[in-house]
Amino acid sequence: MAVKVPMGFEIAGVTAGLKASGRPDLGLVYSPYPLAWALMSTDNVVKAPCVSRNRSRFTSGAAVRGIVVNSGNANCATGERGIWDNEDMAGAVASALALARVQDMLTASTGVIGQTLPVDRIREAIPGLTSALGEDSGAFADAILTTDTTPKQVGATLRGGSRILGIAKGSGMIHPSMATLLAFVLTDADISQDDLRAVWPGIVERTLNQVTVDGDTSTNDMAVALSSRQIGADKHEFVEALEEVVVKLARKVARDGEGATRLLTVRVTGARTGAEARAAARSVVGSNLVKAAVHGADPNWGRILAAVGRSGAVSDLANLRIGLQGVVVYRGSLLGFDAAAVSEKMRAEEVIVEIDLAAGEAVGEAWGCDLSAEYVRINADYTT
Amino acid sequence: MAVKVPMGFEIAGVTAGLKASGRPDLGLVYSPYPLAWALMSTDNVVKAPCVSRNRSRFTSGAAVRGIVVNSGNANCATGERGIWDNEDMAGAVASALALARVQDMLTASTGVIGQTLPVDRIREAIPGLTSALGEDSGAFADAILTTDTTPKQVGATLRGGSRILGIAKGSGMIHPSMATLLAFVLTDADISQDDLRAVWPGIVERTLNQVTVDGDTSTNDMAVALSSRQIGADKHEFVEALEEVVVKLARKVARDGEGATRLLTVRVTGARTGAEARAAARSVVGSNLVKAAVHGADPNWGRILAAVGRSGAVSDLANLRIGLQGVVVYRGSLLGFDAAAVSEKMRAEEVIVEIDLAAGEAVGEAWGCDLSAEYVRINADYTT
Repeated sequence: MAVKVPMGFEIAGVTAGLKASGRPDLGLVYSPYPLAWALMSTDNVVKAPCVSRNRSRFTSGAAVRGIVVNSGNANCATGERGIWDNEDMAGAVASALALARVQDMLTASTGVIGQTLPVDRIREAIPGLTSALGEDSGAFADAILTTDTTPKQVGATLRGGSRILGIAKGSGMIHPSMATLLAFVLTDADISQDDLRAVWPGIVERTLNQVTVDGDTSTNDMAVALSSRQIGADKHEFVEALEEVVVKLARKVARDGEGATRLLTVRVTGARTGAEARAAARSVVGSNLVKAAVHGADPNWGRILAAVGRSGAVSDLANLRIGLQGVVVYRGSLLGFDAAAVSEKMRAEEVIVEIDLAAGEAVGEAWGCDLSAEYVRINADYTT
Repeated sequence: MAVKVPMGFEIAGVTAGLKASGRPDLGLVYSPYPLAWALMSTDNVVKAPCVSRNRSRFTSGAAVRGIVVNSGNANCATGERGIWDNEDMAGAVASALALARVQDMLTASTGVIGQTLPVDRIREAIPGLTSALGEDSGAFADAILTTDTTPKQVGATLRGGSRILGIAKGSGMIHPSMATLLAFVLTDADISQDDLRAVWPGIVERTLNQVTVDGDTSTNDMAVALSSRQIGADKHEFVEALEEVVVKLARKVARDGEGATRLLTVRVTGARTGAEARAAARSVVGSNLVKAAVHGADPNWGRILAAVGRSGAVSDLANLRIGLQGVVVYRGSLLGFDAAAVSEKMRAEEVIVEIDLAAGEAVGEAWGCDLSAEYVRINADYTT
């Protein structure tokens, strides 16, 4: 998909030869301007060097000039060697772009873990990568994919003409190792770094962190927002549009979960707090039993009820309501409903579960997918 | 399997017609003596009436005379009607046995949730049930099963001649609803109720609560220990034997997880605390990615490492070691090992993962099974 990047950005994607498939595997976002930026990354104790390095730069508060991303190798659990290989990747790009400081270039890696990064191939590909820099984001969106079946891009234009472009790769499992969720949001809206950093954690909490494909969190997850600040924008409008872009990315990631045949959306209302609403939604979307029932179009509200029950978000079930595809299937006690008709409605692209906890005013949403035999096939293959 | 119950117990199992299959579905444990007893039950907010009723009796501290158990219907989420049906089941048994108080008879139910309990059929079956009371536990062990493929019994004899008999049903999912783990331990060892209640929670925490088939906790789970106090026993020996019996039950339950083809055992050593060791073990045994890798005999230590990393049990990975079927596959950094040979070793009845956190002295263990396409098939069928 050809999407023009926001003003003040150049972008590229090429094949460095890290993937056995020969698909694009090296991407670059670059700006001639210092970028305001914000970062959310994995809290798994096992972290790839790119995560630790970006986090350290983040803490310094300094601006950056871009990010180089490779797929096909996560460069994680690769010991001290991995730290230097990651630094090398940044250094080679910084040098090709004549940046003043290598730290101005962020890094991200995704792919198999525990294998040394073939940094020579990356170094060799960098002249081609930097000379490919341009306005079309399509090659970059392809280059960050692993087992994803489609690239994921979402754009928005604000009233003043400024734009937001989100690009992500999914949390489907990597052959042969593990999930990584990477999301990059580029904008030319003039938002200060302080403002961006104030809103980014909340937005990621409510969106990407509510995506559950299989509960496994990765060593390499990160979500980066970058602003070139080229075009004036209303802050309130920007923040709303930003969250909308990331919600759409989250849905695309969930829909493309490994082996998924349908998107599962869980909307919780009537919670005491937003955190409890989100926890209840995640508990339902993360239940293997619920996911298997969604796969089989089984309106099994008992499994949904049990998942809400163990989430800690509810202490009284008397007024709890569960809706499935718009049909109320549970209302605090037994309730007759046309199971065959609801099952038929569940044979759709998206299954929507609505849960009213009737305990407060807060809401939350989570996204996932059904659990299919294909998921097991993808992840059980002998691969190491 | 014909196993003689400990002294001071009578036991039976019959078919009441709750299961469409016509298999046994009503079981009874009875004692002419007041039984010392201890209880651990689900902390899901959604609880079946049997759980709440037993818990209330437990809190009173009074002795009991037995427990009546039905399978084929969980009598959960059945509203106020379910409370009276559960009471009816206890009352009918208490009356047939001429007990002074209906509260002396505990109850347990397992099966489909959200369907009214056919308590008439239970009432009609009770004369046959009480007249079948005898010494052989086989029919009871059969009568509590749901999707289990085998009954689960474990016995032990202490030096003084007292005995322990554990009977469980597995956490495989119920067609069409949810998992329930029921465990009953009968002993004639003379242990006081206070002593039994002092040790039971810890034993269940370290054993049955470390079984993860799919992370879904049930509305009906309970583990009950009952003692007729007929034979003198050394307390220390008894407590050790009791834990051993329940560990063996836990392993049987895990091995019989739905669709399971092999038992997955995770042993964590070198943790700072027992709770952290158990959390790390549970995180690994509960990871869909690890479970799928075990199914495919893939020595994918990266998935194990990531699961340990997110468990919160470790802050430093430098000295962490991972063993798979006795072969060290990770030792703080990259390590060459013969992947094909380890994969071959993983094609066994039991896959043992050993993780040394190198952070302290505490240990913990967890049990689960591989994730197979069969699991998805069992749980995706349209059933409601």
